[in-house]
Amino acid sequence: MREVALAESLEVDLVGGLEFALLLQRLGGVAREALAHLARKFEVLQHRLVQRRLDQHGPQGAKSKYPSLGRINPLHLMLRTGTDAYSGVLDHRGIRAADDLVVMPLQCGTQWDGLGHIFYENNMWNGYDCREVTSFGAQKCGIEKTKAKMVGRGVFLDVARVLGKDALEDGYAITGDDLDRTTKAQGVKIRRGDYVIVRTGQMEAKLAAGNWDGYPGGDAPGFSFETLEWIHHNEIAALASDTWGCEVRPNESEPGINQPWHWIVIPIMGLTMGEIFYVAELSEDCAEDKTYEFMFVAPAIPITGAVGSPTNPLAIK
Amino acid sequence: MREVALAESLEVDLVGGLEFALLLQRLGGVAREALAHLARKFEVLQHRLVQRRLDQHGPQGAKSKYPSLGRINPLHLMLRTGTDAYSGVLDHRGIRAADDLVVMPLQCGTQWDGLGHIFYENNMWNGYDCREVTSFGAQKCGIEKTKAKMVGRGVFLDVARVLGKDALEDGYAITGDDLDRTTKAQGVKIRRGDYVIVRTGQMEAKLAAGNWDGYPGGDAPGFSFETLEWIHHNEIAALASDTWGCEVRPNESEPGINQPWHWIVIPIMGLTMGEIFYVAELSEDCAEDKTYEFMFVAPAIPITGAVGSPTNPLAIK
Amino acid sequence: MREVALAESLEVDLVGGLEFALLLQRLGGVAREALAHLARKFEVLQHRLVQRRLDQHGPQGAKSKYPSLGRINPLHLMLRTGTDAYSGVLDHRGIRAADDLVVMPLQCGTQWDGLGHIFYENNMWNGYDCREVTSFGAQKCGIEKTKAKMVGRGVFLDVARVLGKDALEDGYAITGDDLDRTTKAQGVKIRRGDYVIVRTGQMEAKLAAGNWDGYPGGDAPGFSFETLEWIHHNEIAALASDTWGCEVRPNESEPGINQPWHWIVIPIMGLTMGEIFYVAELSEDCAEDKTYEFMFVAPAIPITGAVGSPTNPLAIK
Amino acid sequence: MREVALAESLEVDLVGGLEFALLLQRLGGVAREALAHLARKFEVLQHRLVQRRLDQHGPQGAKSKYPSLGRINPLHLMLRTGTDAYSGVLDHRGIRAADDLVVMPLQCGTQWDGLGHIFYENNMWNGYDCREVTSFGAQKCGIEKTKAKMVGRGVFLDVARVLGKDALEDGYAITGDDLDRTTKAQGVKIRRGDYVIVRTGQMEAKLAAGNWDGYPGGDAPGFSFETLEWIHHNEIAALASDTWGCEVRPNESEPGINQPWHWIVIPIMGLTMGEIFYVAELSEDCAEDKTYEFMFVAPAIPITGAVGSPTNPLAIK
Repeated sequence: MREVALAESLEVDLVGGLEFALLLQRLGGVAREALAHLARKFEVLQHRLVQRRLDQHGPQGAKSKYPSLGRINPLHLMLRTGTDAYSGVLDHRGIRAADDLVVMPLQCGTQWDGLGHIFYENNMWNGYDCREVTSFGAQKCGIEKTKAKMVGRGVFLDVARVLGKDALEDGYAITGDDLDRTTKAQGVKIRRGDYVIVRTGQMEAKLAAGNWDGYPGGDAPGFSFETLEWIHHNEIAALASDTWGCEVRPNESEPGINQPWHWIVIPIMGLTMGEIFYVAELSEDCAEDKTYEFMFVAPAIPITGAVGSPTNPLAIK
Repeated sequence: MREVALAESLEVDLVGGLEFALLLQRLGGVAREALAHLARKFEVLQHRLVQRRLDQHGPQGAKSKYPSLGRINPLHLMLRTGTDAYSGVLDHRGIRAADDLVVMPLQCGTQWDGLGHIFYENNMWNGYDCREVTSFGAQKCGIEKTKAKMVGRGVFLDVARVLGKDALEDGYAITGDDLDRTTKAQGVKIRRGDYVIVRTGQMEAKLAAGNWDGYPGGDAPGFSFETLEWIHHNEIAALASDTWGCEVRPNESEPGINQPWHWIVIPIMGLTMGEIFYVAELSEDCAEDKTYEFMFVAPAIPITGAVGSPTNPLAIK
Repeated sequence: MREVALAESLEVDLVGGLEFALLLQRLGGVAREALAHLARKFEVLQHRLVQRRLDQHGPQGAKSKYPSLGRINPLHLMLRTGTDAYSGVLDHRGIRAADDLVVMPLQCGTQWDGLGHIFYENNMWNGYDCREVTSFGAQKCGIEKTKAKMVGRGVFLDVARVLGKDALEDGYAITGDDLDRTTKAQGVKIRRGDYVIVRTGQMEAKLAAGNWDGYPGGDAPGFSFETLEWIHHNEIAALASDTWGCEVRPNESEPGINQPWHWIVIPIMGLTMGEIFYVAELSEDCAEDKTYEFMFVAPAIPITGAVGSPTNPLAIK
Repeated sequence: MREVALAESLEVDLVGGLEFALLLQRLGGVAREALAHLARKFEVLQHRLVQRRLDQHGPQGAKSKYPSLGRINPLHLMLRTGTDAYSGVLDHRGIRAADDLVVMPLQCGTQWDGLGHIFYENNMWNGYDCREVTSFGAQKCGIEKTKAKMVGRGVFLDVARVLGKDALEDGYAITGDDLDRTTKAQGVKIRRGDYVIVRTGQMEAKLAAGNWDGYPGGDAPGFSFETLEWIHHNEIAALASDTWGCEVRPNESEPGINQPWHWIVIPIMGLTMGEIFYVAELSEDCAEDKTYEFMFVAPAIPITGAVGSPTNPLAIK
């Protein structure tokens, strides 16, 4: 493998044996034979929807109208390093290895909101008592329950593009009509059990500005309260977007109610929600091939009793 | 959705909207239509290979001949709880929500060893200087490079079962012949770019004993040094097993060399390795349907500069 | 300073300029002049009562009848290292520096229990509602309230020595009479506002055994329930011991009540309690000079809203 | 005790038994009798020099010319809460208790720089090789070596006040003459082995502005390079100030050298340095009683192998 790798080493930071999977994918026919259960263009699309990055350059800590206490960017700490190896201090163990650890809020980047994340009065999804979520974690509705389930048909709804915008403005409330208009314009149908990913363009606007201020807990375009009806009618499996909180901010709710859409969608409807999804590349790709459906795989990291989880979602055409 | 959920609520802790994906999968025809790009029996198999659990019941901290300093089980900590909600202390924020954080070594459970994890003398994979892995993380070969690549054809090699054992004994060195014998017995072929998962049965033996002592850094069955030839010849994408460190322990190496197979497979061959994979259910399933290949999806959590990552691998038939 | 340091460098790991403070103390007359407000033998005693060590060799994680979930030994992690410096990767910052971080339960070693640590029914000390202690910390009775107060007259009661034991046996319930018998035998009087430190010998027994099993949350000698009367009568400022939880285990309380002494001493009496104090050297010293009183300084680390704090207590004669 | 406490409970958040120490101190004669080894006015001064606070309102994360990677404000996390108690979920353990944990860089607040913190080329204090400070911590010069030594005569030098300023301007380089002028104006002498605390007023200026921007790693008044001569001549035990890094920024050093004073004072002179000391109250007190010397007690939290430590320093007159 080494030769292959070195041959390309000036251009890219290779991934070793994984290159063979990549090469296969470039080989078309061989890819189709070897990976017959994956649709065509696997090689193009598999990298189109992913966790952008998890590090100190993430959105947490940026200026916010509604700071989420305790949510920091991931703190990546080394337990052993290559500099230790170089310094000879690891050799007594008979191997030169690096090792690491992370201190990470489970909702600091691309992530799933679990069903234990939001309560309606004293209950969570399925009528469980909110006291099931203690300092020891969620005894009910823990994210680990989803660990084998985040796989299905994915549908991408590029609302910003269909509405002719680079990004929807803060406060723009996406309606069920906007979503239906988008499916029609894209020529795709929503089916029961789909994983639906919606683009507002807000994240790309923040990335272009080089500043996350206002993104975590600030004003944003997003789902209007009435989309609850659309979600219920379409019986989708999960819903994700490229904003910090999916729903529109500010919202039309009465004083003292924050994120009213969350109050219903998680504890009452039991919808697993994805936030901070990076969809820029997926948007380009779907516009190019006019194909807005794909296989969607986004497994949670099943920390027992967690109310959320980072995920690295894949859209596979 | 609620009605559906409540209907089954006495039996299981439901996952809300995700149930529709699950129901679809049970519906056969609809599943095939909705998820045509997934092979039959998706509903049976998608949950057969997963991160078992990430919590204080994990293997870290158990008795070990070779303790890995700093590797603790995940420490799951709550930032807000349902008990806070019940106590009324969250209402001033206008929403009742739980939130959480984890302190987690990146290789404490089912995980990928990144290419920055092991050094050969002063180099890592692709000839990079080990000093690229500092206290600030891996400037080269960080796990984030793999984030869109952990997808392909998976092949399961149930070596323990083919050799007629519940579990291979500690110190048993799996050879290339054992692997070939297993593929023949199973009637499956290894192809270039495959993701190969090997079962020794050791994890199931520890789980049956109810005690992880000896698992992290202890004696174990695993790959012999000569399997390096088999790996190179077969040009596989990645290799995983159900033990703590994949290779046989103790090994045949000369004094002062620990995990000699690691010295070659990661920095010289550039193989991304999976460890602590839970394969009990996959083993049962493959024995039943005699199908040892499947779509394999196991994305890393792309923490920038990480040398390893937890993953929740899925085997999809 | 260097010369002085190097002169002794073969013998000890010096502390640089601090040596001068140490030398002063050895100089007798100069010490008395420079530190006139410190009593004689400062140089002998100032190091006789200290936090023993905070690292992975601490008592947390040992076998226990009553595991305290989430209490790990301190996890000390480096942000930058000397090996980074040696490897030249820090030079772009214009300085070669090491830096570090700790993940530490606040009650994992020698520590103070704050007044927000224990609740009686729904109240804490001073009648505050227990809901003042949320996931955001203690809004009332936080340890920071004590930050300037942990200074006063210290009295050491070497109960084990007076009762002629190396260590009191597990389950031995220390009574008020034992405490009075000890003060008489030692020729010291308890005064209002004193900081009283009691020795059972249990920690020394565990250290001698080289194994902490049974120490965190296990059986132990300690204060009987009736010592509450002694504490109230003597109006002491704080009470500390060398065990994990100060009170006797098992205790005489009715089923379903754990650590009954804690139920009263913290939320009802408002006593700040010290645990896991290392008193072996103090015991030797007091036995030698027959002086059981000293200046006591043990400041908490004032983390806002904390319910406990590590401390490095000093007994200064 | 309860009665006493409740009597004052409308005014202050009491500290329970510690009140007795406090009351004693207010009682003058009794205090002198009970705490004869503490000088007069103990009750006034003991709380005049302390760690201000350790929480998310600290200086870390503020805008900086020179960000110190990985230094966050303390992250205080609860392991159990009063809201858990109120919700009844703790009762199965037979006690209602709160418990907590901190994730804290060791130099994020009022702290000591240890002798392993800075390297000169490849060496630290006492000529030790910098490779003694690895990912496992400092094998030499760890902060735990100081655990019984941070006690002595303290001298406060209120340079800002003597120079007639509220705060010295950023970039003002304090000279040995400034320090001598201050001792003369204050009528205090520096003695061998003293702990010297210097006030620039910068921290108070930032607190008054309500914004830490520029404090961590930004421009600041502080010690000029030539004060090294003053420090060496006076043979002091330790030196502390109210800024982030003690030395003047920007400094007069040649390009590519950052914090040149640190390069010498720690690895060459072996001086333990205190930073981010809160001295506002001490300044007022000393101005009032014209007494600039006191007993100084500032024990480090002896985390084994640490290169720094938080401390809660006390000035006791």
